Amino acid sequence: MLIEQQIDAMLGGDSRALSKLISQVEDRDPGYQDVMDRIYSHTGKSYRVGITGPPGAGKSTLVDRLVPLFRQEGKRVGVLACDPTSPFSGGALLGDRVRMQSLLTDDGVFIRSLATRGSLGGLSQVTHEVALLLEAAHYDVIIFETIGVGQAEIDIIQTADSIAVVVIPQSGDAIQAIKAGLMEIADIFVLNKSDQGQADRAVHALHFALPSADGKNRWVPPIVKTVASQNEGMDKFKTALDAHHKFLGDSGIQRKQRERLQLFIQRIIEENLRKELWSAERAQQLSQQIELILQGKLGPFQIAKEIQKGLR
Amino acid sequence: MLIEQQIDAMLGGDSRALSKLISQVEDRDPGYQDVMDRIYSHTGKSYRVGITGPPGAGKSTLVDRLVPLFRQEGKRVGVLACDPTSPFSGGALLGDRVRMQSLLTDDGVFIRSLATRGSLGGLSQVTHEVALLLEAAHYDVIIFETIGVGQAEIDIIQTADSIAVVVIPQSGDAIQAIKAGLMEIADIFVLNKSDQGQADRAVHALHFALPSADGKNRWVPPIVKTVASQNEGMDKFKTALDAHHKFLGDSGIQRKQRERLQLFIQRIIEENLRKELWSAERAQQLSQQIELILQGKLGPFQIAKEIQKGLR
Repeated sequence: MLIEQQIDAMLGGDSRALSKLISQVEDRDPGYQDVMDRIYSHTGKSYRVGITGPPGAGKSTLVDRLVPLFRQEGKRVGVLACDPTSPFSGGALLGDRVRMQSLLTDDGVFIRSLATRGSLGGLSQVTHEVALLLEAAHYDVIIFETIGVGQAEIDIIQTADSIAVVVIPQSGDAIQAIKAGLMEIADIFVLNKSDQGQADRAVHALHFALPSADGKNRWVPPIVKTVASQNEGMDKFKTALDAHHKFLGDSGIQRKQRERLQLFIQRIIEENLRKELWSAERAQQLSQQIELILQGKLGPFQIAKEIQKGLR
Repeated sequence: MLIEQQIDAMLGGDSRALSKLISQVEDRDPGYQDVMDRIYSHTGKSYRVGITGPPGAGKSTLVDRLVPLFRQEGKRVGVLACDPTSPFSGGALLGDRVRMQSLLTDDGVFIRSLATRGSLGGLSQVTHEVALLLEAAHYDVIIFETIGVGQAEIDIIQTADSIAVVVIPQSGDAIQAIKAGLMEIADIFVLNKSDQGQADRAVHALHFALPSADGKNRWVPPIVKTVASQNEGMDKFKTALDAHHKFLGDSGIQRKQRERLQLFIQRIIEENLRKELWSAERAQQLSQQIELILQGKLGPFQIAKEIQKGLR
């Protein structure tokens, strides 16, 4: 099928065409940039939800239970599970496990695991591109599921409109989340498995660390208790997401879209320049200049400065 | 203490001075680049061992059991545990757990966990810098312990002289390792927990996927069975490392050092150029050019190309 036909099919709701285009983006097939340019004007109408938290917090179950609540409203939902360790652990940490059967057979739900494939584009860039494809294919809600806070994942999660940080009572996660500065990126805290011990202590710790409402028009992240495996508290989580979505408003969502677009283009340019910079010739030059360091005449940062002077 | 004094103390074997310098590098304190330039000529005498594998493969235990085997030879050992999820999981996946007491009280052993701290330098760059400090502080062997194969970790592990990939029999790790292309980076395969079921099957799968010895002077990764928790097979692992070290020889080690140095300088320059590139003024320009995309006139890759033209 010609690429134009594939794009048309995807825009028309053909999920097989969508899957093929996603693979092209993941594989950095020739022409994927052209695909992105062609579909971009069809993007920008989706609500992006980022869900992050440590292994074992129950993120996948939470997502499985959240999706139907959007489906009830007639919204089409895309789920992107991004696990940087996936090619290695076989997705053991996230995403590749069997999803709820009802989701897998629902035409209005699209689920995909994304993993770092060696050096073919950073995971965050690929994830954003795949999300744009989902937007163009009329998925109203896109849920990003990530583990941990590696740089790639911070990049992914920070491009979401609403960010939920999932912690559990037992493991001291709440305290760690506070230490790791996650208070700043979380729009909603989900205390999952809250039927287990020490839930109140965890809520206390989170409350204590949260900024207090001070009368200004500022969002104070709510703490939602859930037991996703029992489908408990999911309505409260959904309500919290809706509230944050409303708080952002159209202007807030548009601002986030612009930020995403700006970052996207910056990364494209950086990647292009990086490829140009290390031409065979310049790499060869650098290899010679290294002698000065090996002879103990200059340090690495000094030589870097020298080389940069030459680039101007 | 003046920075010169701190460097002198570190070179003289003062581990508190070393710790302080490491913190400066991690925190990107003003002056850390100067520290790196000053100490570089004291580096290059260590043997770097990379140990990677999925969560639960027993990497930390393996390292704990490996260290004493180097210590018996009078070698000083540094261990750097790099967990990209650490700030979030509190190091639950790796490294922050309690180490063997005998290691903690041994002056010849230095253990440090490194985690991504937001955007303060990439984890791989920071890890390399800390490793250089350990080299300057006369640690003969530096062991890198990482989880998964995110890009940052591939960067870390590929700078090691010898790379051991640790898998366990049960979880299909061996097959996943093959799929993930780890055959290419592994110098040694460690099948840990090999007293558990299906060990022979895993060894078979690995053997099948490995290149066969073809008479050329090529390294064929051995598969070593261990039960680290029982201290079984550790001598074989050590022997395999020694054999690979010997196979590399001085010329092989020097080649790897040069490659590391070249990559190190490339990353320094890239980071500097990136900061220069997105000056407030240019970011402002970009923000205006984005309008063309939002109006549907150009795609993101097209505008990136336009902007790059302007940079020349």
